[in-house]
Amino acid sequence: MNNMEKVEESANKVEEEVERVLEQARELRESGAALISMISNEEQSIRLKANSLQSSILRLRSSITSLLSQKLFDPKLAEKLEEDLHTARSIITDGAAAGFLPAKPQGRFLRMFLGPINVRAARKEIQLKVKEEYNSYRDKTAFLFLLFPLLLLILRSWIWEGCLPAFPVQLYEAWLLFLYTGLALRENILRANGSDIRPWWIYHHYCAMATALVSLTWEIKRQPNCTQKQRGVVLFLQWAMMQGVAMLLQNRYQRQRLYTRIALGKAKRMDVVWGETAGVDGQLWILCPILFLMQGFEAYVGLLLLKTAFVGVVSEWQVIFCGIVLVFMAVGNFVNTVETLMAKSRFKAKMKSSKSKQELN
Amino acid sequence: MNNMEKVEESANKVEEEVERVLEQARELRESGAALISMISNEEQSIRLKANSLQSSILRLRSSITSLLSQKLFDPKLAEKLEEDLHTARSIITDGAAAGFLPAKPQGRFLRMFLGPINVRAARKEIQLKVKEEYNSYRDKTAFLFLLFPLLLLILRSWIWEGCLPAFPVQLYEAWLLFLYTGLALRENILRANGSDIRPWWIYHHYCAMATALVSLTWEIKRQPNCTQKQRGVVLFLQWAMMQGVAMLLQNRYQRQRLYTRIALGKAKRMDVVWGETAGVDGQLWILCPILFLMQGFEAYVGLLLLKTAFVGVVSEWQVIFCGIVLVFMAVGNFVNTVETLMAKSRFKAKMKSSKSKQELN
Repeated sequence: MNNMEKVEESANKVEEEVERVLEQARELRESGAALISMISNEEQSIRLKANSLQSSILRLRSSITSLLSQKLFDPKLAEKLEEDLHTARSIITDGAAAGFLPAKPQGRFLRMFLGPINVRAARKEIQLKVKEEYNSYRDKTAFLFLLFPLLLLILRSWIWEGCLPAFPVQLYEAWLLFLYTGLALRENILRANGSDIRPWWIYHHYCAMATALVSLTWEIKRQPNCTQKQRGVVLFLQWAMMQGVAMLLQNRYQRQRLYTRIALGKAKRMDVVWGETAGVDGQLWILCPILFLMQGFEAYVGLLLLKTAFVGVVSEWQVIFCGIVLVFMAVGNFVNTVETLMAKSRFKAKMKSSKSKQELN
Repeated sequence: MNNMEKVEESANKVEEEVERVLEQARELRESGAALISMISNEEQSIRLKANSLQSSILRLRSSITSLLSQKLFDPKLAEKLEEDLHTARSIITDGAAAGFLPAKPQGRFLRMFLGPINVRAARKEIQLKVKEEYNSYRDKTAFLFLLFPLLLLILRSWIWEGCLPAFPVQLYEAWLLFLYTGLALRENILRANGSDIRPWWIYHHYCAMATALVSLTWEIKRQPNCTQKQRGVVLFLQWAMMQGVAMLLQNRYQRQRLYTRIALGKAKRMDVVWGETAGVDGQLWILCPILFLMQGFEAYVGLLLLKTAFVGVVSEWQVIFCGIVLVFMAVGNFVNTVETLMAKSRFKAKMKSSKSKQELN
């Protein structure tokens, strides 16, 4: 074989290989397309089955209720069947098939910031990971929530002689704006991933975003009469510290609930019904008074801001706006905390009665 | 059949049905789990194939280059083979299988705001839809970019007698902050979805976010000497209007490129290589002078702000910060526009030479 032949051979070989690579790339595209269409077929079938199951559950529930009301049904049996239906529903909405069911609409807030991208994770483990990360994010920010205002207040009395300079306060406000935006985005993502977070807590973060934004435009007056003019800011910082403590406690509570749910992912029957509030009742008794105290303080700060504005010490519109929003948030927080507690205690009472009945029998 | 028997029968029927529903819910969970594991297996196999193809492409490219440099290869054939390899690569990264390949890491910005959620769409059509939505979002904002500052400037000379009041300007700044945050988030999402957007344009939006945030804390002084003190703001508004025009033109250009790529999704071979810059050259000649003019004006506004700060008319740190950032953005924009143009002209020259060679033969 002479040199010319060798060259030709290697050129031919390269040419053939290129051809083959191109062919394989096309095959890869085909198998991708086939996988996509297969997934969408399977998804469709899972959706149809889930829909029919969910309407069966509704139908059975109403027939149980009507049989019960006509006293044609043993209450003990009815209770057991209702629990079974609840379990079936949990399996559908929390089990491995849940990721293929149609998502809740994602809401204007996410669309505004992210566009039409889908933020729902297909797999339940990832959804739980997202929630876990959200909790650890809240943990981190809760510490900063304590630390940042504390530092400002300490420096104020030690170094700044009772007068906060504008820059660190504005830095803090910018951080708050970033933080609340991040929290609102994450909570919307959690909702899209099937979390049952109450809408109010998200609206609450929208309000907090607005307050942080407005407070950035709020001129921090130093002279003269600094102590009087900055009273609102100081109160706000103290309230923020309390919020840090409350967030830390809330996070502990929420996380315990999450671990319970992760366990339920693999769980059978009863656990799904029993687990939701198990093991965290003790903490609720520490959490609640602190939450209510904080809400009271929030309203107090809001009213003080309004008073400052109307007495005429600082008559900027920002002060009035922040005052109104704080009072509004305090009232909303109070109402929603009470509603949550009432829902929990109703649920617990029901569980207790069914448990004691079972023990009796 | 007496009444008692009827009741018992219907109770039994309900009990059976509940049992069946629970069983079916479990089956649904199983089929969800099976689908998930099937998808992850298929995904794994697509990834392995894509990896091996991509390393083959690299290997073949270097053997073509080495054969060419030893003059052991017909240049015309080499060119054709290189184009084939390019096509193969495009099919892998843009075809139906692309959604199953590992995503680019999503970057700190998205993690900071959204947490670890995956923002990549699995299907190419959805990725293109996201891009199309991004373009129409930019279109809408470009109009507001023109309208908002224009309105402020008109009202300034007609109603406000040469002095801008603080509130509308701050509203505009807050809108800018929201807008740039949204754009930065969307561009990061586009990158995660395989867009080849230059990183600078995203950094540019981070800078713009910082400027908008800082300008919110910047006190709008009215009295005395309003015209002199607000000169920076007025210039900034004029620059913003120019940016609106530039954005509209850019959008037209980008959209045409996108449509070309959508067509390529179904395309064979050559089109992938030829299409990228086809049909949009004419517009580049209108776009470029406007872009350069705008960058010059941006630097001019930045320098004027710095001058105002150092001459001592307005000596707040915000003015200095905004001045420096504007100059930095102008320089970065200029460098990146030139680099983009050079890359385009290199690509075009190569295409032209290969085309004329083909015609000669």
